Amino acid sequence: MEFLNDNFLLNTQFAVDLYHNWAKNLPIIDYHCHLEPQIIYNNQNPENITKLWITDGDASSPVGDHYKWRLMRAAGYSEDFVTGTASDLDKFQAFAVALESALGNPILEWSHLELRRFFGIETVLNSKTSLRLYDELNEQLKTDNFKPRNVIANSNVDILVTTDDPADDLILHDKLKAEEQRFQVFPAFRPDPAMNVFKSTFAEYMDRLGESAKITIKNLSDLEEALTSRINFFHSKGTRLADHGIETFYYDKASAPEVDKTLKKALKGQQLSAEEIAAYHTYLQKFLAKEYAKRNWIMQMHINAFRDLNTPAFSRSGPNTGHDAMTDTSIARQVVAFFDDLEIEGAQTGVDTIPRTMLYSLNKNDFLPLIAIGGTHGQNVNGQGVKQKFQLGPAWWFNDTYTGMCQQLEIFSEQSLLGNFTGMLTDSRSLLSYPRHEYFRRILCEFLGNLEKTGRIPSDIEAAGQVVQNISYYNAKNYFGLDSSSNAIQGVVSSG
Amino acid sequence: MEFLNDNFLLNTQFAVDLYHNWAKNLPIIDYHCHLEPQIIYNNQNPENITKLWITDGDASSPVGDHYKWRLMRAAGYSEDFVTGTASDLDKFQAFAVALESALGNPILEWSHLELRRFFGIETVLNSKTSLRLYDELNEQLKTDNFKPRNVIANSNVDILVTTDDPADDLILHDKLKAEEQRFQVFPAFRPDPAMNVFKSTFAEYMDRLGESAKITIKNLSDLEEALTSRINFFHSKGTRLADHGIETFYYDKASAPEVDKTLKKALKGQQLSAEEIAAYHTYLQKFLAKEYAKRNWIMQMHINAFRDLNTPAFSRSGPNTGHDAMTDTSIARQVVAFFDDLEIEGAQTGVDTIPRTMLYSLNKNDFLPLIAIGGTHGQNVNGQGVKQKFQLGPAWWFNDTYTGMCQQLEIFSEQSLLGNFTGMLTDSRSLLSYPRHEYFRRILCEFLGNLEKTGRIPSDIEAAGQVVQNISYYNAKNYFGLDSSSNAIQGVVSSG
Amino acid sequence: MEFLNDNFLLNTQFAVDLYHNWAKNLPIIDYHCHLEPQIIYNNQNPENITKLWITDGDASSPVGDHYKWRLMRAAGYSEDFVTGTASDLDKFQAFAVALESALGNPILEWSHLELRRFFGIETVLNSKTSLRLYDELNEQLKTDNFKPRNVIANSNVDILVTTDDPADDLILHDKLKAEEQRFQVFPAFRPDPAMNVFKSTFAEYMDRLGESAKITIKNLSDLEEALTSRINFFHSKGTRLADHGIETFYYDKASAPEVDKTLKKALKGQQLSAEEIAAYHTYLQKFLAKEYAKRNWIMQMHINAFRDLNTPAFSRSGPNTGHDAMTDTSIARQVVAFFDDLEIEGAQTGVDTIPRTMLYSLNKNDFLPLIAIGGTHGQNVNGQGVKQKFQLGPAWWFNDTYTGMCQQLEIFSEQSLLGNFTGMLTDSRSLLSYPRHEYFRRILCEFLGNLEKTGRIPSDIEAAGQVVQNISYYNAKNYFGLDSSSNAIQGVVSSG
Repeated sequence: MEFLNDNFLLNTQFAVDLYHNWAKNLPIIDYHCHLEPQIIYNNQNPENITKLWITDGDASSPVGDHYKWRLMRAAGYSEDFVTGTASDLDKFQAFAVALESALGNPILEWSHLELRRFFGIETVLNSKTSLRLYDELNEQLKTDNFKPRNVIANSNVDILVTTDDPADDLILHDKLKAEEQRFQVFPAFRPDPAMNVFKSTFAEYMDRLGESAKITIKNLSDLEEALTSRINFFHSKGTRLADHGIETFYYDKASAPEVDKTLKKALKGQQLSAEEIAAYHTYLQKFLAKEYAKRNWIMQMHINAFRDLNTPAFSRSGPNTGHDAMTDTSIARQVVAFFDDLEIEGAQTGVDTIPRTMLYSLNKNDFLPLIAIGGTHGQNVNGQGVKQKFQLGPAWWFNDTYTGMCQQLEIFSEQSLLGNFTGMLTDSRSLLSYPRHEYFRRILCEFLGNLEKTGRIPSDIEAAGQVVQNISYYNAKNYFGLDSSSNAIQGVVSSG
Repeated sequence: MEFLNDNFLLNTQFAVDLYHNWAKNLPIIDYHCHLEPQIIYNNQNPENITKLWITDGDASSPVGDHYKWRLMRAAGYSEDFVTGTASDLDKFQAFAVALESALGNPILEWSHLELRRFFGIETVLNSKTSLRLYDELNEQLKTDNFKPRNVIANSNVDILVTTDDPADDLILHDKLKAEEQRFQVFPAFRPDPAMNVFKSTFAEYMDRLGESAKITIKNLSDLEEALTSRINFFHSKGTRLADHGIETFYYDKASAPEVDKTLKKALKGQQLSAEEIAAYHTYLQKFLAKEYAKRNWIMQMHINAFRDLNTPAFSRSGPNTGHDAMTDTSIARQVVAFFDDLEIEGAQTGVDTIPRTMLYSLNKNDFLPLIAIGGTHGQNVNGQGVKQKFQLGPAWWFNDTYTGMCQQLEIFSEQSLLGNFTGMLTDSRSLLSYPRHEYFRRILCEFLGNLEKTGRIPSDIEAAGQVVQNISYYNAKNYFGLDSSSNAIQGVVSSG
Repeated sequence: MEFLNDNFLLNTQFAVDLYHNWAKNLPIIDYHCHLEPQIIYNNQNPENITKLWITDGDASSPVGDHYKWRLMRAAGYSEDFVTGTASDLDKFQAFAVALESALGNPILEWSHLELRRFFGIETVLNSKTSLRLYDELNEQLKTDNFKPRNVIANSNVDILVTTDDPADDLILHDKLKAEEQRFQVFPAFRPDPAMNVFKSTFAEYMDRLGESAKITIKNLSDLEEALTSRINFFHSKGTRLADHGIETFYYDKASAPEVDKTLKKALKGQQLSAEEIAAYHTYLQKFLAKEYAKRNWIMQMHINAFRDLNTPAFSRSGPNTGHDAMTDTSIARQVVAFFDDLEIEGAQTGVDTIPRTMLYSLNKNDFLPLIAIGGTHGQNVNGQGVKQKFQLGPAWWFNDTYTGMCQQLEIFSEQSLLGNFTGMLTDSRSLLSYPRHEYFRRILCEFLGNLEKTGRIPSDIEAAGQVVQNISYYNAKNYFGLDSSSNAIQGVVSSG
């Protein structure tokens, strides 16, 4: 079959119908990404394809797509050709060489989808074509089509959600909102620096957070007040999602005075024990969960991300440079204890303590325990109904592959209600990553097509099409409760 | 392909032949289920489809299918509509709505298989059809076909094995045996309450167990005597299977006097340490293993079931309400140590200490270690041969899905002798669950059909058909050594 | 489809083309096996098919294929029929009976591939044919074709790498080199006995190792000197691969004087703590890693092999008798800490500390963490490029199955550059195991064929064919840097 042709990934007629007539034209709600608001706001054409696609910044603080960097290193290139001093053309050609060995790697498919969807180029990028394509791509990058906001709007993005520090003033979000009507950009609340009490930068961050909330953080109640204040501020800017990145699922119990003592030690830069760190994290996570629940926010937990594993590389270039992996420690008992504590508190107070929650793990061995545990917390206090209160988050980072997505769909469908799934996100730092939504939708349609082919679901294109539309767009719209411009929906054959 | 049509799940002609000509008409040996003997004995028509299929009893002690309850909660229904005070019609309609989003979930397939096989109804149950179907189903439920024993007999069940407490008098089993010739019902021995020394109800249970054995349990040797007495009693009633449900695989070593001390502490209601609990469990499990080995029983171990994880829900409604999941702790070292201790004892005494054993885990990450470890204990003392002494149990509970069954077959076939597998069970509390055997047999035939299609097995329908028949029926018949009525076999094209 | 026909495992035309026109005729580099150099050197015809295929030696020290033994035990045979006193014909017939139930087990396919490729026999081996085949096979075994070196040469083996003890004098390798030009045999360096400080045979082994290096090992620096001396000796014999078999991934930190103390305790036969064992192992593994890095060797680590789990069976028959499995303990943190320590040391000294490394785990749940962690160490000191510095090793032992190989290819391709993979090895003690390379190449071609069929790679048979050739042969040739006779390549349509 021709590479990335109209029906790629679609092996049944049912899947083809689902994709082309139901999924393809729906807008995108990219509810978790790492795009910098500044890039969107400034709206400058990228300087060239290497800076846009591969690497920007300098070697001591490179910015770019670390998925691609890992492949270039595996291909045998020195760091100079990855994030270093080699020319942008040399880097582009190095990447093209790496692609020649990347059969089955999502980067091969994503990169070529981007060439097709944004540049209209069907040539395969490899060592023979890279020089020619470099010029051709750079030429196109000068056109208005490649102003970031046009990229987003032309990708049929309805809503995108950035990932923001609680201390951020969100001014760029305000400005964007004032200027840009074609899509909406919302901030998400990501308080990792306030949770990572063990980091050497913690005390300094407390100052920054305190300033943003106009509170001097000297103790636990100051910290709670500051966080609440920032949550309220984010809420006023439209935020409805929080996000936590966690190395493992911490759980330990401690009273507020004990946690207060831990915080004070950390503010003085003193060493903490593993128990103190876990208890601090547990306490704060519960506090935040309750605040999110009050405001009907979604709590996302990204578990088992194991970061900055190569110390010299970290010293050279900082974080997010492709030197991360995942842990493999047991988490089920901690996850169970954490949410059960909240259930008990909720039953005692009659107030909901657990927000709607999306659990992601970077280790796919956790998918089954996480979705099973989530299913034990399906309702609010006193058994009040909530639609899909817990979700297994979409396949993430190292699992954001063909196999990973298929396995996430399998487990979601077998253990819960697939029809409620809020679907894909890009989780990306790359402006051109929207075709990943296309990739996911094709896999989704293929997945349902295979169920139909083997007689496992009613052979009812309307019913299946509705499910596809919900997962591709409407569920995210309804679940996250973000405002969306209704006229963004276009070209849809049958709508929900 | 039409939903659940004649050849659903069967994608090759070889698979179609295997299923229709070899598997379909064989009787069922349901060697592990949770049907109440009382239901079978009383033989009353169900009041309506909701009470039969979804939920019965009251909210403080609901009885029914917690698989379905989890889906209804995920669909957003309040507990009232699940196990609470809503009308039976409302609950049925809530379930129908949940099914609309349940694509790929086994409940969708099982429910519709049950509609077809028991009611002859091919209509898809959804929000549009639920009202009409409710009346139609309830009408049929009044007929003799829906007396429990007719359901069982008409499902071509030859033998079914219930799950029973060691203290049970098994009178209902006696009565059933006297009255019912079409199928046989055997009790299985499930001594969990005697193993769970940490439970607050333990001392009380010791009284109950002692009474049943006419022994006052004051120390370890009393307990051993009582258990042996009950094993003998069960054996006299035809029991040949024991079953253990375990949160994790406990292992710790302690001498009999130390375990005796632990037991005495527990009888007084004193707190036990984790080590004491593990050593008690290990000691008793070894004791029982040896008793089972003596009588040629099968020991089933259901590992990693993590139960009652939502405390308020447990307080409201008790156990088995869909608030369970699985653990993810390492078990390989414990499993190895446990069985190796028994091997060593067997070599010293010359007496077999390890019965034929079926290992199940609720966490499919354990499948490979369990089957590999089982393979290291393939024979009796002094290398005496035993056919498939260890088996990886069939996909269980959360793994009892299309994917779970396929993965269990893959691992069983690649790591051991698939042809020896004793096949499926329902593990169910639901009277209508027998089509799960059909579901499994189709997957089995499809699995072999795929091997044939790619040239991985001899293209010999007789040889493959024999394997299918063995796995579907004859292996269970021979392995478990339960009495069966030979004339139950009917309509089989080729027999073993 | 006919059993093991020309296109077995190949379901697309693209896969058929890839296999027959690109993969099939390439020579084999079997870079890790357990063949005894003596067998190859002596070059004697096997006595009969049972001794060659199933079991040789006596019951107290059987030699042979423990994969097959496990199946025969599962089939219910007593040890007499497996490794004991039964006649060779009886053993062969027992194996034939076991095969009848082995649908989906690799032994079924491998055995019949061997019948076809070495004996030209297409008959299915089962209870009906075993007697006839026994005679027919034994007759053929008398011919020159079954002299071990002819088996190897006729299997189109270019290079094979044995697994050798550091204390070995490698004289057989020298002699073989002098006599045999059709293929080359290299030793690999496997210092497990020097790492296993906890074994009762450790002190004795230190004597043996010391003798081979002409050093009396009394302390840590003696041991380092002895190991370095042996590494130099192996290097002079052409060794370029080291290999480590480890029960779990040990990690603990200790200074050289502390490790020296541990070594001295072990030399005196004193008991060591778990911490001492782990720190000793960590220290020595780092020491060796650096020595390997200096000489541009490959370090293979075979992790999570859990051996000799049935003590009475071990007492009866010794190691490698099919009584092994895998552990399931967490290893990610240890793997990360180990390699990061080396990275830090490298950055401090400016000298490379980490050799090119292949990580294997016997527990496939580790595949994803291992490949992800490996990707964080993709370069040498100061970011110097190395092609595929870390690799996930091919599917090994219990994972060396259809499913295991597919999953290894999936993860390798999605997480790294499949085109760099050095492909399959036999890891086998069996002289006839070379068709496993055919089996792997078919799966590889099918894997790429499926990518092409769904439009996931360019439909370019030349490009895909080149990748197939690299993985089947050229990558191993280049990566390991072993000398190979260039004229071994024959009948290849398109070469690299």
